Amino acid sequence: MTKSPITSPLSDSDRKSTGAVLQTTLVDLIDLSLIAKQAHWNVVGPHFRSAHLQLDELVSTARQYTDEVAERANAIGVSPNGKARTVVESSGLPDYPDNWQSVEATVAAIVATLGAVIARVRKGIDETDKSDLVTQDLLIALAAELEKQHWMWQAQTA
Amino acid sequence: MTKSPITSPLSDSDRKSTGAVLQTTLVDLIDLSLIAKQAHWNVVGPHFRSAHLQLDELVSTARQYTDEVAERANAIGVSPNGKARTVVESSGLPDYPDNWQSVEATVAAIVATLGAVIARVRKGIDETDKSDLVTQDLLIALAAELEKQHWMWQAQTA
Amino acid sequence: MTKSPITSPLSDSDRKSTGAVLQTTLVDLIDLSLIAKQAHWNVVGPHFRSAHLQLDELVSTARQYTDEVAERANAIGVSPNGKARTVVESSGLPDYPDNWQSVEATVAAIVATLGAVIARVRKGIDETDKSDLVTQDLLIALAAELEKQHWMWQAQTA
Amino acid sequence: MTKSPITSPLSDSDRKSTGAVLQTTLVDLIDLSLIAKQAHWNVVGPHFRSAHLQLDELVSTARQYTDEVAERANAIGVSPNGKARTVVESSGLPDYPDNWQSVEATVAAIVATLGAVIARVRKGIDETDKSDLVTQDLLIALAAELEKQHWMWQAQTA
Amino acid sequence: MTKSPITSPLSDSDRKSTGAVLQTTLVDLIDLSLIAKQAHWNVVGPHFRSAHLQLDELVSTARQYTDEVAERANAIGVSPNGKARTVVESSGLPDYPDNWQSVEATVAAIVATLGAVIARVRKGIDETDKSDLVTQDLLIALAAELEKQHWMWQAQTA
Amino acid sequence: MTKSPITSPLSDSDRKSTGAVLQTTLVDLIDLSLIAKQAHWNVVGPHFRSAHLQLDELVSTARQYTDEVAERANAIGVSPNGKARTVVESSGLPDYPDNWQSVEATVAAIVATLGAVIARVRKGIDETDKSDLVTQDLLIALAAELEKQHWMWQAQTA
Amino acid sequence: MTKSPITSPLSDSDRKSTGAVLQTTLVDLIDLSLIAKQAHWNVVGPHFRSAHLQLDELVSTARQYTDEVAERANAIGVSPNGKARTVVESSGLPDYPDNWQSVEATVAAIVATLGAVIARVRKGIDETDKSDLVTQDLLIALAAELEKQHWMWQAQTA
Amino acid sequence: MTKSPITSPLSDSDRKSTGAVLQTTLVDLIDLSLIAKQAHWNVVGPHFRSAHLQLDELVSTARQYTDEVAERANAIGVSPNGKARTVVESSGLPDYPDNWQSVEATVAAIVATLGAVIARVRKGIDETDKSDLVTQDLLIALAAELEKQHWMWQAQTA
Amino acid sequence: MTKSPITSPLSDSDRKSTGAVLQTTLVDLIDLSLIAKQAHWNVVGPHFRSAHLQLDELVSTARQYTDEVAERANAIGVSPNGKARTVVESSGLPDYPDNWQSVEATVAAIVATLGAVIARVRKGIDETDKSDLVTQDLLIALAAELEKQHWMWQAQTA
Amino acid sequence: MTKSPITSPLSDSDRKSTGAVLQTTLVDLIDLSLIAKQAHWNVVGPHFRSAHLQLDELVSTARQYTDEVAERANAIGVSPNGKARTVVESSGLPDYPDNWQSVEATVAAIVATLGAVIARVRKGIDETDKSDLVTQDLLIALAAELEKQHWMWQAQTA
Amino acid sequence: MTKSPITSPLSDSDRKSTGAVLQTTLVDLIDLSLIAKQAHWNVVGPHFRSAHLQLDELVSTARQYTDEVAERANAIGVSPNGKARTVVESSGLPDYPDNWQSVEATVAAIVATLGAVIARVRKGIDETDKSDLVTQDLLIALAAELEKQHWMWQAQTA
Amino acid sequence: MTKSPITSPLSDSDRKSTGAVLQTTLVDLIDLSLIAKQAHWNVVGPHFRSAHLQLDELVSTARQYTDEVAERANAIGVSPNGKARTVVESSGLPDYPDNWQSVEATVAAIVATLGAVIARVRKGIDETDKSDLVTQDLLIALAAELEKQHWMWQAQTA
Repeated sequence: MTKSPITSPLSDSDRKSTGAVLQTTLVDLIDLSLIAKQAHWNVVGPHFRSAHLQLDELVSTARQYTDEVAERANAIGVSPNGKARTVVESSGLPDYPDNWQSVEATVAAIVATLGAVIARVRKGIDETDKSDLVTQDLLIALAAELEKQHWMWQAQTA
Repeated sequence: MTKSPITSPLSDSDRKSTGAVLQTTLVDLIDLSLIAKQAHWNVVGPHFRSAHLQLDELVSTARQYTDEVAERANAIGVSPNGKARTVVESSGLPDYPDNWQSVEATVAAIVATLGAVIARVRKGIDETDKSDLVTQDLLIALAAELEKQHWMWQAQTA
Repeated sequence: MTKSPITSPLSDSDRKSTGAVLQTTLVDLIDLSLIAKQAHWNVVGPHFRSAHLQLDELVSTARQYTDEVAERANAIGVSPNGKARTVVESSGLPDYPDNWQSVEATVAAIVATLGAVIARVRKGIDETDKSDLVTQDLLIALAAELEKQHWMWQAQTA
Repeated sequence: MTKSPITSPLSDSDRKSTGAVLQTTLVDLIDLSLIAKQAHWNVVGPHFRSAHLQLDELVSTARQYTDEVAERANAIGVSPNGKARTVVESSGLPDYPDNWQSVEATVAAIVATLGAVIARVRKGIDETDKSDLVTQDLLIALAAELEKQHWMWQAQTA
Repeated sequence: MTKSPITSPLSDSDRKSTGAVLQTTLVDLIDLSLIAKQAHWNVVGPHFRSAHLQLDELVSTARQYTDEVAERANAIGVSPNGKARTVVESSGLPDYPDNWQSVEATVAAIVATLGAVIARVRKGIDETDKSDLVTQDLLIALAAELEKQHWMWQAQTA
Repeated sequence: MTKSPITSPLSDSDRKSTGAVLQTTLVDLIDLSLIAKQAHWNVVGPHFRSAHLQLDELVSTARQYTDEVAERANAIGVSPNGKARTVVESSGLPDYPDNWQSVEATVAAIVATLGAVIARVRKGIDETDKSDLVTQDLLIALAAELEKQHWMWQAQTA
Repeated sequence: MTKSPITSPLSDSDRKSTGAVLQTTLVDLIDLSLIAKQAHWNVVGPHFRSAHLQLDELVSTARQYTDEVAERANAIGVSPNGKARTVVESSGLPDYPDNWQSVEATVAAIVATLGAVIARVRKGIDETDKSDLVTQDLLIALAAELEKQHWMWQAQTA
Repeated sequence: MTKSPITSPLSDSDRKSTGAVLQTTLVDLIDLSLIAKQAHWNVVGPHFRSAHLQLDELVSTARQYTDEVAERANAIGVSPNGKARTVVESSGLPDYPDNWQSVEATVAAIVATLGAVIARVRKGIDETDKSDLVTQDLLIALAAELEKQHWMWQAQTA
Repeated sequence: MTKSPITSPLSDSDRKSTGAVLQTTLVDLIDLSLIAKQAHWNVVGPHFRSAHLQLDELVSTARQYTDEVAERANAIGVSPNGKARTVVESSGLPDYPDNWQSVEATVAAIVATLGAVIARVRKGIDETDKSDLVTQDLLIALAAELEKQHWMWQAQTA
Repeated sequence: MTKSPITSPLSDSDRKSTGAVLQTTLVDLIDLSLIAKQAHWNVVGPHFRSAHLQLDELVSTARQYTDEVAERANAIGVSPNGKARTVVESSGLPDYPDNWQSVEATVAAIVATLGAVIARVRKGIDETDKSDLVTQDLLIALAAELEKQHWMWQAQTA
Repeated sequence: MTKSPITSPLSDSDRKSTGAVLQTTLVDLIDLSLIAKQAHWNVVGPHFRSAHLQLDELVSTARQYTDEVAERANAIGVSPNGKARTVVESSGLPDYPDNWQSVEATVAAIVATLGAVIARVRKGIDETDKSDLVTQDLLIALAAELEKQHWMWQAQTA
Repeated sequence: MTKSPITSPLSDSDRKSTGAVLQTTLVDLIDLSLIAKQAHWNVVGPHFRSAHLQLDELVSTARQYTDEVAERANAIGVSPNGKARTVVESSGLPDYPDNWQSVEATVAAIVATLGAVIARVRKGIDETDKSDLVTQDLLIALAAELEKQHWMWQAQTA
């Protein structure tokens, strides 16, 4: 069923470009949620508990926006793809190390990961400025949340 | 940090075999949660709403046990690995089709997917019978939940 | 009391054009809430329960935004008018049939009704782009919600 | 689908007369809910806040009984009709003025409106005494609530 | 202890006739709750989930009124009897088939079962009109709820 | 302000007779709430805790209906009077003994008190049958609750 | 049972004087709760709703401390007496007028009533300073709450 | 539909023996819930309130496990049968007496009833040890709860 | 620590201009929260209760956005400054009078205060249109809320 | 770390004497919580359920104040000691018997235990009157709660 | 309106001295709430998250007592003044540094700030011992809370 | 009352050996709860807040299982003994140091304490494998929880 059963409120080209932004963001957010869970389970060190809890808040944010982004894709008549293979093939995030990690290494990796997602979301905000203000508004809300958490992770490195 | 910072309540060989079962189950459950979300977003047809909601309950179950399984691995001194690449490389679940799917196709795919997970979890129950009753008890609870949902998905095919 | 007791944060012409958009949207949303309730009560057929419940979510959305839109009109110094007669005289929505309706007929009518509202809300988003970004932001949130539900109703026709 | 798909627990003539009472009450309650919302948005004056809040309680009551009355019609095998046009054509309530209204004018209009609804509901209680005690019980509960609120609005005029 | 330890607010003959109505209703409601659970567990087919959930609402209603009816019997000085054997010996409801049932067969059986209970409750309303208005009021509330659910089950057959 | 600022939905004679029933019930209920609190504080003996808790449920019932009865009086245009002196002068309940009381004496006194209130409420149900069905419905609900609690207090004397 | 079944943590003379203060306060608080309810039901005028709601907060405070004061009496081995007749015979509060009262008259009466209670509670604080600090602490908490509400009622007279 | 639409995770013989255990337990639990309700309504005597409340906790436990046991039967591909007639024909519990019962008689009967259920559940635990650990785990949880309540009922006979 | 430990998603000049807007808004909102509390405590007159409660809703809004604005400053790498001295030195709001104030004077002062804040926030919306859409979106949400409350305060002056 | 890392708001001698009172109370409360739990588990007899539940309320009170007392010690710069050995060595409470106890024996033992704790807490209130009013206030609140429960246990012996 | 519209339960001199204590405390608490928020936003370093969260609990305490202290001033007939300028002119707290601060510097500053507030509150407890026990009780509760948090901040410096 | 008033579902020897395991576990868990509270109050150092909170979760776990273990003892007809003296005499846990402890020392002590409890619980799991699967299941659940927390405490030492 590759022909869309959902009509789009957008013109065909806007649908295509907006759909591409949403698919990119979807994949990044799923990867972010898996990385944050991986970190949540594997962090060790004196600040373990604080980091362990804060990582679950990040998982929670990633999951909430994953859903909103995928449903927005549907709303403009584009099928979202969030399977594991798709994530591996198209995520824009840096790899996360295997095995237990110290809190310091964990914080550094999460700061870098968030920096990468934010840069891509901000690009999406620019790209949707002409094609779909509704999608742009969703990306702005996502950027606001990610940048807030980015500050909170960076604050620990000072 | 590949040397475990966590002591194990198990003997070394029990730790190894139990850890392998937990890692296998972890990967399957993450894959299950991604597949169920994929289906949740892409299902279409007259029973859309029912299937859409039921799929989110499956996501919820998969996520809850993902966490419990990963934390059990830590509790026996084994680092869990739940990254996207690990899922792609070692999941035991069949691939899920891309694009929108009819409710019938969705139900059939979920029934098959659950059947595959259940078979592997039951194998894990056997394997941990001697090595760790605490892990076995977790797998029994997981099987109970998955088999219950398996019935509910099969019931729709009658 | 036709002279406004409420000062406006907008210039007079922006107040007038924005007020017109809000009044139009208000009437559409009240009509939508009455139509969705009518459908909620009169739907019959094998999928009755699913449609019955989903229609109440639509009523709920329509009522929530009815209130926000009317209060936004007040906030810019314009008296909102949501009486039954005003709705009949100025709603932009197609008529909804009398008597019980099958689920299929109900779904088709709701898809069409939502399509009509969305088109008008999107027009309002364009019209307020220069006159009032605060009102525009409200309409964008409304469009996001309506387009999401539009997808969910259309998904049942596939 | 004008032939009822729902069997009635009442004889045919009781079904007809009871159905007429319910349809009349349904329309009055929808009109009441729209009038109370209109007043909620357009009231001004020193007691604004009190009246604004109290009007929403009236909306809430009207909406709750609208639903119960429409569902009771279905339960006796009669299709309820609550569309905007039906309300305009058959409501028994006096018109409500356009534009902002002082608290005094608002209170007076609501007292009159409630008086009109109550008189009609009491007539419905008489008419259903022989035809359907279940419907009568619903109308008695409605009268109890409306007469209580009628007192509270009148109390402000003393 | 067959002599009542509870005095009755009713005359002896009213107590006897009202008590008989309550005992009849009690048995019907217990049987209804067991049938609805049986159906809840054994329904299969594409609408499984909807029917499965709706049946539990019926169980819930039956149980709530079972309790209220039994406690009303006590309140008028009559010992209620709700044991399994009493239900088998005196229930007025048609038998429900063994084994899994399709959604269509389930809906048809529930519609018929509800029709039977409603007819008997309405008879009880007539019988208590002279003997005890308090009991009558309880039966009216029960009829209202059962007739509402009867509509919702019938609606699926249209 | 002895002339009523509240119009009545009843004829003048119905208003008068219904108002008298409501005022009588109001006074009885206030007295009941004070007696039940007195008993709640002064009960002693092995079953202290059970009786102490059950008495507070009776207080709660008495207070809830006190409010509903007084508000119903207002709704029919009659000023309710629930002052301490009015209670002493017109309550129909037997006096309650001073000082600590054994559980047995407490139960006996409460059973007798409830018997007295119920008899008077049942008389009110008869008297309002022609004058006001809305008030009658309130008294029926009150009788249902009091007779249920009467059973529960009597049950302890068996 | 006039001999106390409860031992006292106080000496006999402290028990007697503290008990007298608690009994006085108990009676005042019950009278206050009845007066505030009487006012709650009988207030009329443009500020009806505000006064009606605020009076119920006063009832709530009076009832809460009635219970705490009576239970404190028990805790020091004194039987509390809160029957209607006791209230009429020993309350220190001014009489409250019959029939509906304007908001202004209501506010004035409540301000005077609260003034009277506060003066007596403050006297109780002095009297228990030597006899029982635990009781004194309860009276201080009561004074704090009453004086706060006294301000809020007086504020309306400015 | 006697051929199972649900595949079983068990071998055929394990499915049969486990299914028999579940069906036996299902019937016992339904009977237990009806007996406990019967006792809840018919207990009288000085400890009425305590026993009345405690019996409802037993009903609650019985109902919860009734559902879990029936759903487990489905999960292994066996249709559960919980109709009144089935209960009468195959329950393993002793009969419960008709009419009101003293607290002592009630406690004794419940202690005996629980003893009978527990013995049969423990037998089921043995029988499923080889056939299905998932079902066994459910029966262990059920035994834990029933044995806890058994203690609490026996404690009253000391 | 005057060198920012937090990287900014904005260019340096955008960071500077956006940071200035946020700092200005932060100070205004803190001042608004202190003024609204001052008014909450010092308002007197017949509408005391309504104004007292409404002022706390304003405090609540001011505090919520104070936090969001300060955290947004951090998110773009700017240290927020909300100390008392900073507020006194840079707030753009008019002074609020000392001592008790009548409701009329209070309403007038709050209307003026809100007018001043809104004008400054709207200026901030313009200034951030090019520099940071995420910050602009936050200011738009703030303006929406303040303008809504501005209407509600003005409505009382009509 | 025997030198206090926490400064005290008290003079050294006040810190010492207040600290001694708090340490004494801490130990008594821990012992009380263990005794009440022991009684909760071992009580038997017809009033089992009532006593079992009431004992858990006592545990709850003891635990809540244990925490407040220990934290108060810290707040004045004194390290609290609540280890099992410390309790055995310095508790002022009488021993509680081993094995199951009848309700009568349980009530008697709890009444005696509470009497002992109260006497010691009252002594602490005297001792802190000059040294620390904040600690005294905490002990007064504790005495109020214990004396209330003491009454409720004694009431059962009448 | 400088003449108090609120009568005082205190003599004139007690009103004056108590009022001065309350005004002093009010200003300190507002300053404390602003400082704690400033610290909440500007803290950085490895323990960021812990300190960030703990600071918000301090804000919460400061705000709650700010309100209680201001309302107590009203209750004794004194107008509270909590404007920004008043805080700057009369706060007794040390200045808090601008810009981001390390966790260590933050903890040290908060410990010092709390020490200063506590000393002043303890002085207020002494000053109100003769003038108003109700106010003193409020200050004692405030001291208890501040000293508890003081311990928790100091504990981090050990 | 040393002869058990509670019958056992176990044979005499199974009852004895299982009872011994439960008594041992009970004592260990009470000691664990007291040690964790002691640590909760006496921990100091930069990670104070994290450790302080985490210790209360351990207290919570210890208390919950204390209750379940003691109630299980009763359920098999064995009287549990959890008095302070019994804990001191038979606990298997290492002593915990007096006075304030650094976070590092605290973490080390808790890790060791948990290690000791877990070893003993695992021994209990082995011992009950033949005697009582219901008790074994409870111990498995306890081990799962303790081993999870053991990991979280060890993680801080890495």
